[in-house]
Amino acid sequence: MLYFLDIFGTLIFAISGAFKASRRELDILGALVLATATGVGGGIIRDMVLGATPPAAFHDESYLFVCLAGGVTVIFIAPRIARRWNMVMAADALGLGVFSAIGAAKAAAYGLGPMGTIMMAALTAVGGGVIRDVLVCEVPAVIRTDFYATAAILGGATFVALHACGVGQSWLLFATTITATGLRLLAMRFHLRLPKVRRLDESAIPNERD
Amino acid sequence: MLYFLDIFGTLIFAISGAFKASRRELDILGALVLATATGVGGGIIRDMVLGATPPAAFHDESYLFVCLAGGVTVIFIAPRIARRWNMVMAADALGLGVFSAIGAAKAAAYGLGPMGTIMMAALTAVGGGVIRDVLVCEVPAVIRTDFYATAAILGGATFVALHACGVGQSWLLFATTITATGLRLLAMRFHLRLPKVRRLDESAIPNERD
Amino acid sequence: MLYFLDIFGTLIFAISGAFKASRRELDILGALVLATATGVGGGIIRDMVLGATPPAAFHDESYLFVCLAGGVTVIFIAPRIARRWNMVMAADALGLGVFSAIGAAKAAAYGLGPMGTIMMAALTAVGGGVIRDVLVCEVPAVIRTDFYATAAILGGATFVALHACGVGQSWLLFATTITATGLRLLAMRFHLRLPKVRRLDESAIPNERD
Repeated sequence: MLYFLDIFGTLIFAISGAFKASRRELDILGALVLATATGVGGGIIRDMVLGATPPAAFHDESYLFVCLAGGVTVIFIAPRIARRWNMVMAADALGLGVFSAIGAAKAAAYGLGPMGTIMMAALTAVGGGVIRDVLVCEVPAVIRTDFYATAAILGGATFVALHACGVGQSWLLFATTITATGLRLLAMRFHLRLPKVRRLDESAIPNERD
Repeated sequence: MLYFLDIFGTLIFAISGAFKASRRELDILGALVLATATGVGGGIIRDMVLGATPPAAFHDESYLFVCLAGGVTVIFIAPRIARRWNMVMAADALGLGVFSAIGAAKAAAYGLGPMGTIMMAALTAVGGGVIRDVLVCEVPAVIRTDFYATAAILGGATFVALHACGVGQSWLLFATTITATGLRLLAMRFHLRLPKVRRLDESAIPNERD
Repeated sequence: MLYFLDIFGTLIFAISGAFKASRRELDILGALVLATATGVGGGIIRDMVLGATPPAAFHDESYLFVCLAGGVTVIFIAPRIARRWNMVMAADALGLGVFSAIGAAKAAAYGLGPMGTIMMAALTAVGGGVIRDVLVCEVPAVIRTDFYATAAILGGATFVALHACGVGQSWLLFATTITATGLRLLAMRFHLRLPKVRRLDESAIPNERD
């Protein structure tokens, strides 16, 4: 069950990632690269950080095939998908929840503490999108006007709290997914955003650190 | 023989990488950093993904010395090299072929499947250039108008196909290098490019995913 | 003692990192991400390269807490810190020295050669700042107009030279810190910069490598 949700989340992430290619005049390899980076990038970085190498995405190549499928889909029928964008975004929220649950569980299995576990939940969920944005030279949305990474972070915090209470693995994964996905859907529905940092005048910091 | 080609490819990649510094008003450390990133960056990321740490470039420091040599060469005689740019690009195509062959062989040795092996061939060949482009805030050419990564990918596919047929290691490396280098030279000669992704209107995706 | 300097350096790096958020209209998550990336990013990449996974910052979560504390401080009292910017920069120079010393020592412990050890000293000290700059789409200052990474490199070279002479670990760490911090303070005082690479005309390189 979790495996199918994970594959489904990878597909949706790949599709939403490949869309950037149609906004930035990339070529078809660009679309496939962004699809793959967004689909499996977060999990690959997480596994590299944890030392779980080669990363899971290379053990079971279904993930890579699903990324290519997502990219090819966008190359051929992008306009048709765009017309159902709200459905893509709802599915994306589910992917976000599943990815944070898997990230948190893997981090805990590798002995990370509460902070590390929460960070790995967020990294799994948003890492792929951050790589995609860096590749097309955009400041990642998650650090500009976010309620995306925040949902993953609160999902990870739920995992840590319930884990400390001795809740079993399936319930942990379920509760983390529900929390992160639910918060993301609420944020989309009510246009929630984190507050901005107060802007500082250029002259306030005479010589910024290199 | 492969070792010397590898060193030679690293030198050429380092030289072509350092040239970016003279286009972007960087300082001499910038030139050395871009030379090193382009020369050994792809192999280092590949080894980090595979878990072959510390990466090969640190086991035999000749690679790092060759990168510095490439950077210093560009700092001192960039205009003289620029006049022979076609020769640099031809040598670069050879480096591309050698790097994909080595990348594919290492991935196969670490047990990766066909897709993973092809990805590692491409990552070894273009990873350094992508790091270089990200460092100077440019969208990597390989995702914009490529027939560079594509040559490495087809080289990697050749490796996988012949490997499945039971071809021996030396022939595998030879065939992969010839395929990737040959395709790259053909692409340069005939100005081959991958097709672009159809551009989507801004209004097509009302609220893009974060 | 080294542990407290390391924590102190992490705090200062986190504070100087979070300041970017107030210059680039990021939200509060952005400030925390930049604080964490700048504070522990260099050490995390170093550990991933060396294969020392999970990285040290996850073994002792004090580092992550200190990063968050630095980020929260900037969110609440950025203007007050900006007024004492010279003190922040002096403390930052101390962090630079400590980070290069720790990076060099860890690289040597993992069997890296002289070049690798120097690179790891520099990567530990500037890696976090480079990640921060890449996330906000700026060309990292260390490759534009540097005497920051250069101080870390010369600190690392000091480590390598004294290590070869058989100097003991505590003196090695002390000498590396003093060298890198001292050079950085001198560079700030006398506005030292590395020379720029000669600029090449666009037409000099007809078809740049992808």
